[in-house]
Amino acid sequence: MGLDRLIEGIKRTNNPTVAGLDPKLDYIPEPIVRAAFEAHGETLEGAAAAILAYNKGLIDALCDVVPAVKPQAAYYEMYGWPGVRALSETIAYAREKGMFVITDGKRNDIGSTMEAYAAGHLGTTRVGEAETAAFGADALTVNGYLGTDGIRPLLDVCRRFDTGIFVLVKTSNPSSGELQDQPAGGQPVYRRMGSLCERWGEELPGKYGYSGVGAVVGATWPAQLGELRAALPHTFLLVPGYGAQGGGAADVAGAFDRDGLGAVINSSRGILCAWKKEGCAPEDYAGAARREALRMRDDILGAL
Amino acid sequence: MGLDRLIEGIKRTNNPTVAGLDPKLDYIPEPIVRAAFEAHGETLEGAAAAILAYNKGLIDALCDVVPAVKPQAAYYEMYGWPGVRALSETIAYAREKGMFVITDGKRNDIGSTMEAYAAGHLGTTRVGEAETAAFGADALTVNGYLGTDGIRPLLDVCRRFDTGIFVLVKTSNPSSGELQDQPAGGQPVYRRMGSLCERWGEELPGKYGYSGVGAVVGATWPAQLGELRAALPHTFLLVPGYGAQGGGAADVAGAFDRDGLGAVINSSRGILCAWKKEGCAPEDYAGAARREALRMRDDILGAL
Repeated sequence: MGLDRLIEGIKRTNNPTVAGLDPKLDYIPEPIVRAAFEAHGETLEGAAAAILAYNKGLIDALCDVVPAVKPQAAYYEMYGWPGVRALSETIAYAREKGMFVITDGKRNDIGSTMEAYAAGHLGTTRVGEAETAAFGADALTVNGYLGTDGIRPLLDVCRRFDTGIFVLVKTSNPSSGELQDQPAGGQPVYRRMGSLCERWGEELPGKYGYSGVGAVVGATWPAQLGELRAALPHTFLLVPGYGAQGGGAADVAGAFDRDGLGAVINSSRGILCAWKKEGCAPEDYAGAARREALRMRDDILGAL
Repeated sequence: MGLDRLIEGIKRTNNPTVAGLDPKLDYIPEPIVRAAFEAHGETLEGAAAAILAYNKGLIDALCDVVPAVKPQAAYYEMYGWPGVRALSETIAYAREKGMFVITDGKRNDIGSTMEAYAAGHLGTTRVGEAETAAFGADALTVNGYLGTDGIRPLLDVCRRFDTGIFVLVKTSNPSSGELQDQPAGGQPVYRRMGSLCERWGEELPGKYGYSGVGAVVGATWPAQLGELRAALPHTFLLVPGYGAQGGGAADVAGAFDRDGLGAVINSSRGILCAWKKEGCAPEDYAGAARREALRMRDDILGAL
């Protein structure tokens, strides 16, 4: 239930990391972009074709060593509906290759509107007599600012489709404290949001001790990672901010439990742009991504 | 700048309301759905074609008496990329007809990711040498839980493209208080978020006294509407929850300033399903929507 399949993937690969698929055109080797533009012109369709080809290469190179991918919806939406089509094709391809897919959409709304997001991203949509998975991810990041009314529709869909959510708790950015650190009833807002995650998670118990309701906590806040790991024993942590945003392996070590579970660490730019940093041939971008993913795995496992 | 064009539309039509375009298939008259299914099958494409036809009929019927529409992204995303294409076509059609378009996406993220959302929804996306408006709305609803890092990229795009944002402050749902009413440093969280809106808005001053940074406050909280109207003199209010969610004209009166400006009231289901409530022929759904929109206008103007 919920995030169990992610945990099983982490155990299988012995790798508690997720590769963020944030495909800015600048990150994509020029030959891929050029081929896509030749086929589709310098259009949103052309950009989307480049993104999909790039993602498929990354997924092929990573799928046996990294358990999960996290496509960031914004980088697909910026290319309009063709970009969103590339998102759905990326999700389908990664799942075909056995990866757990976390759509990073930070969606939020209430009632029947949240039901629509839940159906679209984590379940199926009814059209006439047919039921179709519109996006079909395994998990979705969500924003809990609206409270339980915004989360309940997700829990129902997650139970039915064996999918999960990650709720923003303490985000990696410098100004996250403007709201999240405010003292609210004797504890910071982020702790209150964390407590809500534990409560919501009671409805989606998992077989490894973690519920289907995870929390997003940035690698840039090592003290809060440790605090939340201790305070939220059933809440799996999705940790962005490793690498490019400044978090290192020592910073994220506190996110894990004594069994080395309880967290998955995301790297986006580090993996996507490994070919630039390495200075290898652009054609070897996927190989460079794999090498960086293995280096990251060893870096993190070494700190546990 | 920012929301000035919305305010001008409200003055021109003498109507401080916005029609929410939340096109559930259940709301759409059966002949429209049947024609779309006959052309495209019971598929996501078929659903999207029905939605677009329905929306165009509504926009045609409303565009001279209602200044703005608010498509809710969730109801398009649930139909996958064809649904998202219908969203972009709906936005383009409403703008062609002179309406101000608020995409209700409640997007949120940080840094370059928020830049991607901002470009996609409120600006243009660069592809090779070309700049394309991926969605091209006039305003976007956003969630400020991540703080200034999540808002700054929007302000830059809004300034450049004469577009605006509405930040969730006090949402209409019953459980909004779980987080938003928590006392945070001497004031509830929603008041703190409101103060941030005033601060962010300083960068997007408007010519009618309201900035390009508005706030979402539910019609279900009349006391807070009045409180926030007084406390946030430069922040335009987008008020959902009229009608189906229980808010009436008297409840929203406090959202307006002494000139009858400062707020725009949304109705979705009331307008979309007017044909069902009226019991008119399904073919007259757009006429029923127009009659309900005029009734709502008169109801609200009568309470000011």
